[in-house]
Amino acid sequence: MAPRKPPTYAEVSYEVDHEIETAIAPFAPPEQAPAWGPDARLSVAGKPLPRVDGYLRTTGRAKYTYDLNLPGTAVGAVLMSPYPRARGVRVNPAAARKVPGVLDVMTGADAENGNKFGTRGAKLFTDAPNFVGEYLAAVVAESPEAAREGVAALAQSLEADEVLPHVVDVADALKPDAPKLDENGNARTGDPEGRGDVAKGFAEAEVEVGAEVSTPVETHACLETHGSVARWEGDALTVHDSTQAVFGVRSGLAATLGIPENKVRVIQSFMGGGFGSKLGLDRYTVIAALFAKRLGRPVKIFLTRRQDLLNTGHRPSSRQRLRAGARKDGTLTALELVSTGPPGSGCGRPISSLYACPNVRVVHTNVQINSGPPRPQRAPGDVQGATGLEVLMDRLAEKLGLDPLALRLKNFAEKDPSSGRPYSTNPLRECYAKGAEQFGWEALRRKRPGSDPGPLKRGVGMGAQIWPGGGAPNWKADCVVNADGTAEVRTGTQDIGTGTKTILCQVAAEELGLPIGKVSITLGDTDAPFGGSSGGSVVTPSSTPAVHEAAHDAKEKLLALAAPILGKEAGDLEASQGRIRAKGETSGGIPFAEVVRKANAGPVVGSGTRILHDRFREFAIYAFGAQFVEVEVDVETGVVRVLRVVAAHDCGRPVNPMLAASQVEGGVIQAICFALYSERILDRRLGDFVNANLHDYRLALLPDVPEIATIFCGAPDAMVSGVGAKGIGEPAIIPTAGAIVNAVHHATGVWCTELPLTPDRVLAALGVA
Amino acid sequence: MAPRKPPTYAEVSYEVDHEIETAIAPFAPPEQAPAWGPDARLSVAGKPLPRVDGYLRTTGRAKYTYDLNLPGTAVGAVLMSPYPRARGVRVNPAAARKVPGVLDVMTGADAENGNKFGTRGAKLFTDAPNFVGEYLAAVVAESPEAAREGVAALAQSLEADEVLPHVVDVADALKPDAPKLDENGNARTGDPEGRGDVAKGFAEAEVEVGAEVSTPVETHACLETHGSVARWEGDALTVHDSTQAVFGVRSGLAATLGIPENKVRVIQSFMGGGFGSKLGLDRYTVIAALFAKRLGRPVKIFLTRRQDLLNTGHRPSSRQRLRAGARKDGTLTALELVSTGPPGSGCGRPISSLYACPNVRVVHTNVQINSGPPRPQRAPGDVQGATGLEVLMDRLAEKLGLDPLALRLKNFAEKDPSSGRPYSTNPLRECYAKGAEQFGWEALRRKRPGSDPGPLKRGVGMGAQIWPGGGAPNWKADCVVNADGTAEVRTGTQDIGTGTKTILCQVAAEELGLPIGKVSITLGDTDAPFGGSSGGSVVTPSSTPAVHEAAHDAKEKLLALAAPILGKEAGDLEASQGRIRAKGETSGGIPFAEVVRKANAGPVVGSGTRILHDRFREFAIYAFGAQFVEVEVDVETGVVRVLRVVAAHDCGRPVNPMLAASQVEGGVIQAICFALYSERILDRRLGDFVNANLHDYRLALLPDVPEIATIFCGAPDAMVSGVGAKGIGEPAIIPTAGAIVNAVHHATGVWCTELPLTPDRVLAALGVA
Repeated sequence: MAPRKPPTYAEVSYEVDHEIETAIAPFAPPEQAPAWGPDARLSVAGKPLPRVDGYLRTTGRAKYTYDLNLPGTAVGAVLMSPYPRARGVRVNPAAARKVPGVLDVMTGADAENGNKFGTRGAKLFTDAPNFVGEYLAAVVAESPEAAREGVAALAQSLEADEVLPHVVDVADALKPDAPKLDENGNARTGDPEGRGDVAKGFAEAEVEVGAEVSTPVETHACLETHGSVARWEGDALTVHDSTQAVFGVRSGLAATLGIPENKVRVIQSFMGGGFGSKLGLDRYTVIAALFAKRLGRPVKIFLTRRQDLLNTGHRPSSRQRLRAGARKDGTLTALELVSTGPPGSGCGRPISSLYACPNVRVVHTNVQINSGPPRPQRAPGDVQGATGLEVLMDRLAEKLGLDPLALRLKNFAEKDPSSGRPYSTNPLRECYAKGAEQFGWEALRRKRPGSDPGPLKRGVGMGAQIWPGGGAPNWKADCVVNADGTAEVRTGTQDIGTGTKTILCQVAAEELGLPIGKVSITLGDTDAPFGGSSGGSVVTPSSTPAVHEAAHDAKEKLLALAAPILGKEAGDLEASQGRIRAKGETSGGIPFAEVVRKANAGPVVGSGTRILHDRFREFAIYAFGAQFVEVEVDVETGVVRVLRVVAAHDCGRPVNPMLAASQVEGGVIQAICFALYSERILDRRLGDFVNANLHDYRLALLPDVPEIATIFCGAPDAMVSGVGAKGIGEPAIIPTAGAIVNAVHHATGVWCTELPLTPDRVLAALGVA
Repeated sequence: MAPRKPPTYAEVSYEVDHEIETAIAPFAPPEQAPAWGPDARLSVAGKPLPRVDGYLRTTGRAKYTYDLNLPGTAVGAVLMSPYPRARGVRVNPAAARKVPGVLDVMTGADAENGNKFGTRGAKLFTDAPNFVGEYLAAVVAESPEAAREGVAALAQSLEADEVLPHVVDVADALKPDAPKLDENGNARTGDPEGRGDVAKGFAEAEVEVGAEVSTPVETHACLETHGSVARWEGDALTVHDSTQAVFGVRSGLAATLGIPENKVRVIQSFMGGGFGSKLGLDRYTVIAALFAKRLGRPVKIFLTRRQDLLNTGHRPSSRQRLRAGARKDGTLTALELVSTGPPGSGCGRPISSLYACPNVRVVHTNVQINSGPPRPQRAPGDVQGATGLEVLMDRLAEKLGLDPLALRLKNFAEKDPSSGRPYSTNPLRECYAKGAEQFGWEALRRKRPGSDPGPLKRGVGMGAQIWPGGGAPNWKADCVVNADGTAEVRTGTQDIGTGTKTILCQVAAEELGLPIGKVSITLGDTDAPFGGSSGGSVVTPSSTPAVHEAAHDAKEKLLALAAPILGKEAGDLEASQGRIRAKGETSGGIPFAEVVRKANAGPVVGSGTRILHDRFREFAIYAFGAQFVEVEVDVETGVVRVLRVVAAHDCGRPVNPMLAASQVEGGVIQAICFALYSERILDRRLGDFVNANLHDYRLALLPDVPEIATIFCGAPDAMVSGVGAKGIGEPAIIPTAGAIVNAVHHATGVWCTELPLTPDRVLAALGVA
């Protein structure tokens, strides 16, 4: 079946360009500092500048929390449960105390805060573990070696009143004879969600297809394991934490310890990965703080690699049964997702929001197993859900004889199908058009699936994504201009490796009219102005408006101070190249330093807050993208290689296209892990995570990384305010896996939809193994 | 000669009380947050609360910069010149490099910043020292012991092309055969200063007296010696410094190293004394920063006690010849001060500003000697000048047969005699009245000088002071209210041990309507909002208005957020006891925490800047005080003991009367050191400071400390803005020494005016020795 010709890309492009031109103008809210014009007018922002901390990062000089060894630090270590399910578990602290160098032991019985964790009744240590990896006790010692030995001694002393039957597989947990983990049964099905009338939609359909897709448990596998250093000064606690959320950790810690928030300071420095697993308070931090109080010394606790993989969360697995109904021209009439997985594994957003289908139904069943709680992982839910949806779309395209891209364009949503609200901007058609063109989609996709001769078969596939890109309100920043004309940005959010420091320096430098080298930044500290969590792709859209406004405020103050010196009105002045000049002039004027010194009023301070104006709430603010991948499948070995990815994404204004592209590359690589390599394997008999190390838990390695070309589409989004930049961290990981599955089908002619696509699964799908 | 009866204190008191009542109302500037009413209405401010960091201080848990030992720290030490004057001085670095543990050596030849120090052409290391204690070279080593050995090896390698003749005594330097330290001669007399026509004044005088007073070189003798810890992260430098001026050190360091200010962060923690000697950048800080850059490790340098006494400045000596002319009723017609001392030893302010005399003349001669530069020390100049002036006044009273207090009241200045401007407030008469009454002055002073029988003779004396108390403009602060209802104050100034942390928490707590325990503070950090140096008694008047305004701003924001929740107008609400309530109600309302959480807008941030309004500049803003002392002189041994001090001071509103009294006590004790014990002794032959240790350089010890009663007079000063608090740190040290000399005269009948009044000098004055 030859695919029909899709609309010409010229047509699509034309529509898109028109859309861009009109996207900004009408909505600029008067309350905000004026947004900049097009990138072409900018001198610092919008440029692919290297990271401001690149030197430190690339020379090993960057100090991570893991590297922090304060004088007199004692080292903590924790004992985690080896039982997947037990009751009356206890240790003998005396066993650990005998170990030379061990200073103290902590159990639920003697934790000074009453063994609490958080505000929802959770315990710090349990005596009734429900998965391998729950916290049982902790040791603090003079050295890491002594702490480990202390934990080993505690482990040897372990006793349990009862080791209960467990289940670690979702399918097993649904069997009638499965251990009951919950009084009401292991499975709980939520109310159906969606819109319209799916039965009617399928009745109207001229074709109908189904798909079954399953996705694995993926762990965050941060290179820097989870850990904290805690120290007290009287009743004031300072925690150095490898965290994505200094303010969140602070409030959680204050509540858990029963101390006021203003007595807790949380500091984050360089960080070796979080991906959602470091978004809140964790138990090691509480334990470090309690031990530090006991000892009157700083205490450092970092989890071991195995503990890190066992306990710090994961992306839960999903099993998705999908159905689509459509007219013969490809117009969707109904979409349905029935999914099953551990608690927290719902994944219905993509099917509900990406395409303009009037009838959508999502039903999800959570199933209890003994595997520990999941945690948000980069685009939680959407990575799984988009994989299912995009496979479903390709199966529909196959059945209809349509090009997959043509089918997607046919079902492009002109407004948010869930809420009916208009989009602030939606450059998805531009993403489709530019991505397909650069990829060479049309020519490559014409090939009949599985038609390559020989064992190495190539194929191409695509996927699309939608993700809330508008950020959060109330983030704050200060911008200080010093007496030597240099500037400092201060805000409490974190740079978790994404380049936040650099883009915020760019925003401030651009707005102030300073070279980037004259702007420095302090962040990752609850002593700085409030900034929220580095998660949900909110950092760029939430912090750039605050920094933009702070810099604008500082600039306005500089202009006002310069006016009497220059004998002009402030309104007739502008700032550029570190000088205040009459508007339109390119030389003369006076340097910032002179303005600040002559004013003799101390550093000039501007402040900014990211306000989400009511007007914005009338719009649906999303970031869109489409990815195109080419794979090669060895049908004799089952090995899949991704050769090439073209990723076309919308992030409003990319403040630094190089760093935004770096986010896209990271997302694509992590998605390749998800699609091809990574999978938590729990031993059904022991309930244990048998590949809890970075050798057996496979990540993409350098030879696995394809060529990745990133294209940015769209335009600055006025609804985001500030500089119009949307989030890009999560969007980039969403469409890749579906595109890979689709490409493997295009290469081989078979559908292999149980992820990851390891050689054994591919061979099974090919009917070889 | 019996003293005349002074005015009754009831009369004085009445005038003063009237003055207080009218002091505040008319000038409250509308731009400022409203000042509080009288103390009686306050619940936190104005109360003698213990220090917020008292627990840490009294239990040894407070960490001083001296206590900071970062991991991997190398230790620096410096070699200071043993020559008082030489040329072509050099060391052999190889000698030190051989010492085990020595890592590197630095001399002027290889200091990476071109051997610069500051912006005025000074050198970091000299090869031509002009006093014993100049920096010649430095060593950095693995341990303090190795660093000391390295310095010893350098010292042994010392060579000089020429050791030049030197002079360390001012009188010697004026001799014709003295070594010429300056081409134009060792002495330089400044232009006469003052007002009116002194010759005419003396012509109009009916009586004239003279006095000769000399004061010693006093060192700051901080218990924590001077030092810094420097560390780099890439091109960014962080310095932990035992300093009174984080922002001053930052700008000095940036200029000296040729790096931008925004790449330097200076942090100060607990501090063991400064008294003016830690008001700016010092060489050890630069050396630590340069070594840290070389080694890629943190470097700590603290001076030894001897080096600290040699090099970090001192209060220069003075020799004062004074004359006063007056009418028979005591009205001053002329005052003259002719003084001599090393550069920086001018001391003419008290004689120019304390009394209402129309004709004043001050002539000062600076004399070069080989003793190193002085540095501001607690009330620099005024301690010396007030001693001379108050002795002169008592000699005049003696000659006129007037009670010394009556003479001072007679010459009370109704407005600033220098500028003619009105005082913002001047409660000096209240200080006189209340101090004298509590002291029992009238009865005690009636005794004829020297008339006690036996060898132990008691006497009483008094002194007064004036000091600029209005602080500096442009200090900033933030006040943050968290989601749990706690608050944080942030400002960049330092707490150098005076209680700044505590009073700023009190100001914020009072203004917010929170208990003090709910307010915390961060200061001593250039990452906080700008705050100036802790010197000149400016901290309280400069920082309390900023913090008051910041807290007020935060409170206004809280009221605005609470208004819709409570269904009222913000203007009808007030904050008290951590709740927002309808005005006038004492129960109900909602807690701050609920307001912040329901607003869901992150922490509430208020900001404040201390503005010095133009209206204020029309006034003379001073802090006044009078002290009364009783001494006992053993005329057989010459030992003087101070038995009792009553100190009546004006500091506007004492935000914390206990801490303000603590400042007064510290000032009185330091003044007793100056008057009786402390004296730098330079060996004329060697040019060396022979008592450069805390055994031979005598400070007051516990048995030397008298009973000190402090009375606060006056009222909140609206011209200071904010809460109306003036500085008290320096005022307290000014009048004591003169009062002691006067009391010794009252006890013995002889004038002993060469300070310190050591037994040998007292016996000489008595004609015994």
